[in-house]
Amino acid sequence: MTRPGGRSARVRDAVHDAVVELLAAGEIDAAIPKIAERAGVNPTSVYRRWGSRDHLLLDAAVTRLRATSPIPDTGSLRGDLSGWAEGVERSMRDRHGQILLRALVATLRPDEKPLEYLQARGEDLQEVLDKAAARGEAVPTVDEVLDFVLAPLYLRVLFRRPIEPGTGEKLVERLLTALPAGPAPSAA
Amino acid sequence: MTRPGGRSARVRDAVHDAVVELLAAGEIDAAIPKIAERAGVNPTSVYRRWGSRDHLLLDAAVTRLRATSPIPDTGSLRGDLSGWAEGVERSMRDRHGQILLRALVATLRPDEKPLEYLQARGEDLQEVLDKAAARGEAVPTVDEVLDFVLAPLYLRVLFRRPIEPGTGEKLVERLLTALPAGPAPSAA
Repeated sequence: MTRPGGRSARVRDAVHDAVVELLAAGEIDAAIPKIAERAGVNPTSVYRRWGSRDHLLLDAAVTRLRATSPIPDTGSLRGDLSGWAEGVERSMRDRHGQILLRALVATLRPDEKPLEYLQARGEDLQEVLDKAAARGEAVPTVDEVLDFVLAPLYLRVLFRRPIEPGTGEKLVERLLTALPAGPAPSAA
Repeated sequence: MTRPGGRSARVRDAVHDAVVELLAAGEIDAAIPKIAERAGVNPTSVYRRWGSRDHLLLDAAVTRLRATSPIPDTGSLRGDLSGWAEGVERSMRDRHGQILLRALVATLRPDEKPLEYLQARGEDLQEVLDKAAARGEAVPTVDEVLDFVLAPLYLRVLFRRPIEPGTGEKLVERLLTALPAGPAPSAA
Protein backbone atom coordinates (compact mmCIF):
# COMPACT_ATOMS: atom_id res chain seq x y z
CA MET A 1 0.00 0.00 0.00
CA THR A 2 1.19 3.52 -0.74
CA ARG A 3 0.08 6.62 1.14
CA PRO A 4 -1.72 9.05 -1.19
CA GLY A 5 0.91 11.74 -0.74
CA GLY A 6 3.93 9.43 -0.51
CA ARG A 7 6.87 9.35 -2.86
CA SER A 8 5.76 6.00 -4.23
CA ALA A 9 2.35 7.42 -5.16
CA ARG A 10 3.96 10.45 -6.79
CA VAL A 11 6.19 8.23 -8.92
CA ARG A 12 3.21 6.13 -9.92
CA ASP A 13 1.19 9.21 -10.91
CA ALA A 14 4.09 10.69 -12.87
CA VAL A 15 4.69 7.44 -14.73
CA HIS A 16 0.98 6.97 -15.46
CA ASP A 17 0.80 10.57 -16.73
CA ALA A 18 3.77 9.89 -19.00
CA VAL A 19 2.08 6.76 -20.41
CA VAL A 20 -1.14 8.64 -21.15
CA GLU A 21 0.69 11.57 -22.75
CA LEU A 22 2.83 9.34 -24.97
CA LEU A 23 -0.20 7.29 -26.05
CA ALA A 24 -2.11 10.49 -26.75
CA ALA A 25 0.81 11.72 -28.87
CA GLY A 26 0.56 8.56 -30.97
CA GLU A 27 3.65 6.97 -29.49
CA ILE A 28 1.91 3.71 -28.86
CA ASP A 29 5.12 1.71 -28.93
CA ALA A 30 7.07 3.90 -26.48
CA ALA A 31 9.40 1.69 -24.43
CA ILE A 32 10.15 1.98 -20.71
CA PRO A 33 13.27 4.21 -21.03
CA LYS A 34 11.27 6.79 -22.99
CA ILE A 35 8.36 6.64 -20.54
CA ALA A 36 10.75 6.99 -17.58
CA GLU A 37 12.47 9.95 -19.20
CA ARG A 38 9.18 11.75 -19.74
CA ALA A 39 8.12 11.02 -16.15
CA GLY A 40 11.46 12.25 -14.83
CA VAL A 41 12.19 9.00 -13.01
CA ASN A 42 14.93 6.41 -13.25
CA PRO A 43 14.16 3.61 -15.75
CA THR A 44 15.44 1.12 -13.15
CA SER A 45 12.62 2.14 -10.78
CA VAL A 46 10.09 1.56 -13.53
CA TYR A 47 11.47 -1.89 -14.39
CA ARG A 48 11.59 -2.80 -10.69
CA ARG A 49 8.04 -1.71 -10.03
CA TRP A 50 6.22 -2.85 -13.15
CA GLY A 51 8.54 -5.46 -14.64
CA SER A 52 7.45 -4.94 -18.25
CA ARG A 53 5.91 -2.35 -20.52
CA ASP A 54 2.74 -4.41 -20.82
CA HIS A 55 2.26 -4.55 -17.06
CA LEU A 56 2.82 -0.83 -16.82
CA LEU A 57 0.30 -0.08 -19.58
CA LEU A 58 -2.24 -2.36 -17.98
CA ASP A 59 -1.76 -0.76 -14.56
CA ALA A 60 -2.02 2.77 -15.98
CA ALA A 61 -5.16 1.96 -17.98
CA VAL A 62 -6.92 0.11 -15.16
CA THR A 63 -6.06 2.74 -12.53
CA ARG A 64 -7.12 5.69 -14.65
CA LEU A 65 -10.29 4.12 -16.04
CA ARG A 66 -11.46 3.08 -12.57
CA ALA A 67 -10.68 6.52 -11.19
CA THR A 68 -12.83 8.26 -13.82
CA SER A 69 -15.96 6.32 -12.89
CA PRO A 70 -16.25 5.76 -9.15
CA ILE A 71 -19.56 4.34 -7.93
CA PRO A 72 -21.43 6.86 -5.76
CA ASP A 73 -23.44 5.87 -2.68
CA THR A 74 -26.80 7.53 -3.29
CA GLY A 75 -29.05 5.21 -1.28
CA SER A 76 -30.74 3.68 -4.33
CA LEU A 77 -29.56 1.20 -6.93
CA ARG A 78 -30.79 3.41 -9.76
CA GLY A 79 -28.84 6.37 -8.37
CA ASP A 80 -25.65 4.39 -7.79
CA LEU A 81 -25.64 2.75 -11.22
CA SER A 82 -26.63 5.95 -13.04
CA GLY A 83 -23.82 7.89 -11.34
CA TRP A 84 -21.32 5.21 -12.28
CA ALA A 85 -22.59 4.88 -15.86
CA GLU A 86 -22.40 8.65 -16.35
CA GLY A 87 -18.75 8.50 -15.28
CA VAL A 88 -18.03 5.65 -17.69
CA GLU A 89 -19.84 7.50 -20.48
CA ARG A 90 -17.90 10.69 -19.76
CA SER A 91 -14.55 8.90 -19.82
CA MET A 92 -15.51 7.08 -23.03
CA ARG A 93 -16.39 10.39 -24.70
CA ASP A 94 -12.99 11.72 -23.71
CA ARG A 95 -10.02 11.15 -26.00
CA HIS A 96 -7.74 10.04 -23.17
CA GLY A 97 -10.32 7.56 -21.92
CA GLN A 98 -10.70 6.11 -25.42
CA ILE A 99 -6.94 5.80 -25.77
CA LEU A 100 -6.67 4.03 -22.41
CA LEU A 101 -9.42 1.56 -23.30
CA ARG A 102 -7.67 0.77 -26.60
CA ALA A 103 -4.35 0.34 -24.79
CA LEU A 104 -6.02 -1.95 -22.27
CA VAL A 105 -7.56 -4.17 -24.92
CA ALA A 106 -4.40 -4.19 -27.03
CA THR A 107 -2.29 -5.23 -24.06
CA LEU A 108 -4.48 -8.23 -23.28
CA ARG A 109 -3.22 -11.06 -25.39
CA PRO A 110 -5.31 -14.17 -25.71
CA ASP A 111 -4.06 -17.27 -23.85
CA GLU A 112 -2.68 -15.22 -20.98
CA LYS A 113 -3.66 -15.32 -17.35
CA PRO A 114 -7.17 -14.10 -16.54
CA LEU A 115 -7.64 -10.41 -16.38
CA GLU A 116 -8.04 -8.62 -13.11
CA TYR A 117 -9.46 -5.42 -14.52
CA LEU A 118 -13.06 -6.47 -14.97
CA GLN A 119 -12.77 -8.51 -11.80
CA ALA A 120 -11.86 -5.39 -9.80
CA ARG A 121 -14.75 -3.46 -11.34
CA GLY A 122 -16.97 -6.48 -10.75
CA GLU A 123 -16.12 -6.41 -7.04
CA ASP A 124 -16.95 -2.68 -6.82
CA LEU A 125 -20.28 -3.39 -8.49
CA GLN A 126 -21.02 -6.45 -6.35
CA GLU A 127 -20.74 -4.30 -3.25
CA VAL A 128 -23.32 -1.86 -4.62
CA LEU A 129 -25.65 -4.71 -5.59
CA ASP A 130 -25.32 -6.31 -2.15
CA LYS A 131 -26.25 -3.06 -0.45
CA ALA A 132 -29.31 -2.67 -2.71
CA ALA A 133 -30.37 -6.27 -2.07
CA ALA A 134 -30.06 -5.67 1.69
CA ARG A 135 -32.44 -2.70 1.26
CA GLY A 136 -34.90 -5.08 -0.41
CA GLU A 137 -34.39 -3.76 -3.96
CA ALA A 138 -34.50 -6.05 -7.00
CA VAL A 139 -30.92 -6.41 -8.20
CA PRO A 140 -29.27 -7.66 -11.39
CA THR A 141 -26.12 -9.80 -11.40
CA VAL A 142 -22.72 -8.23 -12.06
CA ASP A 143 -22.65 -9.99 -15.43
CA GLU A 144 -25.95 -8.34 -16.32
CA VAL A 145 -24.55 -4.92 -15.43
CA LEU A 146 -21.49 -5.57 -17.61
CA ASP A 147 -23.65 -6.87 -20.49
CA PHE A 148 -26.28 -4.12 -20.38
CA VAL A 149 -24.16 -1.07 -19.54
CA LEU A 150 -20.40 -1.50 -19.92
CA ALA A 151 -20.31 -3.65 -23.07
CA PRO A 152 -22.39 -1.27 -25.25
CA LEU A 153 -20.34 1.77 -24.15
CA TYR A 154 -16.99 0.04 -24.67
CA LEU A 155 -18.03 -1.42 -28.02
CA ARG A 156 -19.00 2.02 -29.31
CA VAL A 157 -15.50 3.28 -28.53
CA LEU A 158 -13.67 0.26 -29.92
CA PHE A 159 -15.64 0.40 -33.16
CA ARG A 160 -15.60 4.19 -33.32
CA ARG A 161 -19.34 4.65 -33.12
CA PRO A 162 -20.46 7.94 -31.53
CA ILE A 163 -21.74 7.93 -27.95
CA GLU A 164 -24.81 10.15 -27.65
CA PRO A 165 -25.07 12.10 -24.39
CA GLY A 166 -27.32 10.25 -21.95
CA THR A 167 -26.40 6.79 -23.30
CA GLY A 168 -25.12 5.58 -19.92
CA GLU A 169 -28.32 6.53 -18.16
CA LYS A 170 -30.44 4.99 -20.93
CA LEU A 171 -28.53 1.72 -20.62
CA VAL A 172 -29.08 1.65 -16.85
CA GLU A 173 -32.82 2.24 -17.38
CA ARG A 174 -32.87 -0.63 -19.84
CA LEU A 175 -31.18 -2.90 -17.29
CA LEU A 176 -33.56 -1.96 -14.46
CA THR A 177 -36.62 -2.36 -16.70
CA ALA A 178 -35.47 -5.88 -17.58
CA LEU A 179 -35.34 -6.91 -13.92
CA PRO A 180 -38.10 -9.11 -12.58
CA ALA A 181 -39.92 -7.47 -9.65
CA GLY A 182 -38.47 -8.30 -6.24
CA PRO A 183 -34.94 -9.40 -5.39
CA ALA A 184 -33.22 -11.40 -8.13
CA PRO A 185 -32.54 -15.11 -7.42
CA SER A 186 -28.82 -14.38 -7.01
CA ALA A 187 -29.60 -12.09 -4.07
CA ALA A 188 -31.71 -14.65 -2.25
CA MET B 1 -16.71 -8.10 -58.12
CA THR B 2 -14.75 -11.34 -58.32
CA ARG B 3 -16.18 -14.66 -59.42
CA PRO B 4 -16.10 -17.15 -56.52
CA GLY B 5 -13.78 -19.50 -58.39
CA GLY B 6 -11.75 -16.80 -60.15
CA ARG B 7 -8.05 -16.17 -59.75
CA SER B 8 -8.70 -12.94 -57.86
CA ALA B 9 -10.83 -14.75 -55.29
CA ARG B 10 -8.22 -17.48 -54.91
CA VAL B 11 -5.50 -14.89 -54.25
CA ARG B 12 -7.72 -13.18 -51.72
CA ASP B 13 -8.45 -16.46 -49.91
CA ALA B 14 -4.79 -17.45 -49.88
CA VAL B 15 -3.71 -14.07 -48.54
CA HIS B 16 -6.46 -14.07 -45.88
CA ASP B 17 -5.43 -17.61 -44.87
CA ALA B 18 -1.83 -16.44 -44.54
CA VAL B 19 -2.89 -13.51 -42.34
CA VAL B 20 -4.91 -15.77 -40.03
CA GLU B 21 -2.13 -18.37 -39.81
CA LEU B 22 0.54 -15.78 -39.02
CA LEU B 23 -1.66 -14.09 -36.39
CA ALA B 24 -2.45 -17.50 -34.88
CA ALA B 25 1.28 -18.25 -34.75
CA GLY B 26 1.78 -15.09 -32.71
CA GLU B 27 3.35 -13.14 -35.57
CA ILE B 28 1.12 -10.16 -35.03
CA ASP B 29 3.57 -7.77 -36.64
CA ALA B 30 4.16 -9.77 -39.83
CA ALA B 31 4.68 -7.38 -42.73
CA ILE B 32 3.34 -7.71 -46.26
CA PRO B 33 6.39 -9.50 -47.77
CA LYS B 34 6.13 -12.23 -45.14
CA ILE B 35 2.37 -12.56 -45.61
CA ALA B 36 2.80 -12.71 -49.40
CA GLU B 37 5.51 -15.35 -49.10
CA ARG B 38 3.31 -17.55 -46.94
CA ALA B 39 0.38 -17.10 -49.34
CA GLY B 40 2.61 -17.95 -52.31
CA VAL B 41 1.81 -14.71 -54.12
CA ASN B 42 3.86 -11.77 -55.30
CA PRO B 43 4.21 -8.98 -52.68
CA THR B 44 3.51 -6.47 -55.44
CA SER B 45 0.03 -7.94 -55.96
CA VAL B 46 -0.65 -7.59 -52.25
CA TYR B 47 0.48 -3.96 -52.14
CA ARG B 48 -1.53 -3.20 -55.27
CA ARG B 49 -4.70 -4.79 -53.97
CA TRP B 50 -4.67 -3.76 -50.31
CA GLY B 51 -2.29 -0.80 -50.19
CA SER B 52 -1.17 -1.33 -46.60
CA ARG B 53 -0.86 -4.01 -43.97
CA ASP B 54 -3.62 -2.36 -41.91
CA HIS B 55 -6.08 -2.44 -44.80
CA LEU B 56 -5.24 -6.06 -45.44
CA LEU B 57 -5.73 -7.01 -41.79
CA LEU B 58 -9.04 -5.19 -41.68
CA ASP B 59 -10.27 -6.82 -44.87
CA ALA B 60 -9.24 -10.29 -43.66
CA ALA B 61 -10.86 -9.83 -40.24
CA VAL B 62 -14.10 -8.36 -41.59
CA THR B 63 -14.44 -10.94 -44.37
CA ARG B 64 -13.79 -13.91 -42.14
CA LEU B 65 -15.88 -12.73 -39.18
CA ARG B 66 -18.87 -12.00 -41.42
CA ALA B 67 -18.50 -15.36 -43.13
CA THR B 68 -18.64 -17.26 -39.84
CA SER B 69 -21.99 -15.79 -38.83
CA PRO B 70 -24.35 -15.41 -41.78
CA ILE B 71 -27.95 -14.49 -40.95
CA PRO B 72 -30.32 -17.31 -41.87
CA ASP B 73 -33.81 -16.74 -43.33
CA THR B 74 -36.05 -18.81 -41.06
CA GLY B 75 -39.30 -16.90 -41.44
CA SER B 76 -39.26 -15.48 -37.89
CA LEU B 77 -37.20 -12.76 -36.26
CA ARG B 78 -36.39 -15.00 -33.29
CA GLY B 79 -35.12 -17.73 -35.63
CA ASP B 80 -33.07 -15.36 -37.78
CA LEU B 81 -31.42 -13.60 -34.84
CA SER B 82 -30.81 -16.83 -32.91
CA GLY B 83 -29.15 -18.44 -35.92
CA TRP B 84 -26.94 -15.41 -36.40
CA ALA B 85 -26.10 -15.12 -32.68
CA GLU B 86 -25.16 -18.79 -32.53
CA GLY B 87 -22.73 -18.21 -35.39
CA VAL B 88 -21.21 -15.20 -33.65
CA GLU B 89 -20.95 -17.15 -30.41
CA ARG B 90 -19.30 -20.09 -32.18
CA SER B 91 -16.73 -17.86 -33.88
CA MET B 92 -16.04 -16.06 -30.59
CA ARG B 93 -15.43 -19.38 -28.84
CA ASP B 94 -12.96 -20.31 -31.56
CA ARG B 95 -9.33 -19.25 -31.23
CA HIS B 96 -9.12 -17.97 -34.82
CA GLY B 97 -12.27 -15.89 -34.35
CA GLN B 98 -10.88 -14.36 -31.17
CA ILE B 99 -7.61 -13.55 -32.90
CA LEU B 100 -9.44 -11.89 -35.79
CA LEU B 101 -11.59 -9.77 -33.46
CA ARG B 102 -8.47 -8.62 -31.61
CA ALA B 103 -6.74 -7.83 -34.90
CA LEU B 104 -9.79 -5.89 -36.04
CA VAL B 105 -9.93 -3.77 -32.88
CA ALA B 106 -6.16 -3.25 -32.83
CA THR B 107 -6.17 -2.06 -36.43
CA LEU B 108 -8.80 0.59 -35.77
CA ARG B 109 -6.99 3.65 -34.56
CA PRO B 110 -9.00 6.45 -33.03
CA ASP B 111 -9.39 9.61 -35.12
CA GLU B 112 -9.56 7.69 -38.38
CA LYS B 113 -12.36 7.52 -40.88
CA PRO B 114 -15.53 5.79 -39.68
CA LEU B 115 -15.47 2.07 -39.74
CA GLU B 116 -17.32 0.09 -42.35
CA TYR B 117 -17.28 -3.21 -40.53
CA LEU B 118 -20.19 -2.64 -38.16
CA GLN B 119 -21.94 -0.72 -40.90
CA ALA B 120 -21.84 -3.75 -43.18
CA ARG B 121 -23.15 -5.99 -40.41
CA GLY B 122 -25.72 -3.33 -39.59
CA GLU B 123 -27.01 -3.44 -43.16
CA ASP B 124 -27.30 -7.23 -43.03
CA LEU B 125 -29.28 -6.91 -39.81
CA GLN B 126 -31.47 -4.08 -41.08
CA GLU B 127 -32.62 -6.30 -43.93
CA VAL B 128 -33.70 -8.98 -41.47
CA LEU B 129 -35.49 -6.44 -39.27
CA ASP B 130 -37.29 -4.96 -42.28
CA LYS B 131 -38.55 -8.38 -43.32
CA ALA B 132 -39.80 -9.06 -39.79
CA ALA B 133 -41.54 -5.68 -39.61
CA ALA B 134 -43.22 -6.39 -42.95
CA ARG B 135 -44.55 -9.63 -41.43
CA GLY B 136 -46.01 -7.54 -38.58
CA GLU B 137 -43.50 -8.63 -35.94
CA ALA B 138 -42.25 -6.26 -33.24
CA VAL B 139 -38.67 -5.37 -34.16
CA PRO B 140 -35.74 -3.78 -32.33
CA THR B 141 -33.41 -1.25 -33.95
CA VAL B 142 -30.02 -2.31 -35.30
CA ASP B 143 -28.39 -0.42 -32.42
CA GLU B 144 -30.42 -2.47 -29.95
CA VAL B 145 -29.27 -5.71 -31.60
CA LEU B 146 -25.65 -4.56 -31.39
CA ASP B 147 -26.05 -3.45 -27.76
CA PHE B 148 -27.92 -6.52 -26.54
CA VAL B 149 -26.21 -9.28 -28.51
CA LEU B 150 -22.95 -8.35 -30.21
CA ALA B 151 -21.45 -6.07 -27.53
CA PRO B 152 -21.67 -8.62 -24.67
CA LEU B 153 -20.17 -11.40 -26.83
CA TYR B 154 -17.34 -9.22 -28.13
CA LEU B 155 -16.57 -7.78 -24.70
CA ARG B 156 -16.21 -11.28 -23.23
CA VAL B 157 -13.57 -12.09 -25.83
CA LEU B 158 -11.71 -8.79 -25.55
CA PHE B 159 -11.57 -9.07 -21.76
CA ARG B 160 -10.94 -12.81 -21.79
CA ARG B 161 -14.07 -13.78 -19.95
CA PRO B 162 -15.43 -17.24 -20.80
CA ILE B 163 -18.44 -17.55 -23.12
CA GLU B 164 -20.84 -20.16 -21.80
CA PRO B 165 -22.57 -22.26 -24.47
CA GLY B 166 -26.00 -20.81 -25.21
CA THR B 167 -24.97 -17.23 -24.46
CA GLY B 168 -25.90 -15.98 -27.94
CA GLU B 169 -29.37 -17.43 -27.72
CA LYS B 170 -29.85 -16.09 -24.18
CA LEU B 171 -28.87 -12.58 -25.34
CA VAL B 172 -31.38 -12.75 -28.22
CA GLU B 173 -34.12 -13.82 -25.77
CA ARG B 174 -33.23 -10.87 -23.56
CA LEU B 175 -33.50 -8.51 -26.53
CA LEU B 176 -36.87 -9.87 -27.64
CA THR B 177 -38.25 -9.79 -24.08
CA ALA B 178 -37.31 -6.11 -23.83
CA LEU B 179 -39.32 -5.24 -26.95
CA PRO B 180 -42.64 -3.49 -26.47
CA ALA B 181 -45.51 -5.49 -28.02
CA GLY B 182 -46.29 -4.59 -31.63
CA PRO B 183 -43.97 -3.06 -34.22
CA ALA B 184 -41.35 -0.72 -32.78
CA PRO B 185 -41.65 3.00 -33.63
CA SER B 186 -38.70 2.71 -36.04
CA ALA B 187 -40.64 0.21 -38.13
CA ALA B 188 -43.71 2.40 -38.45
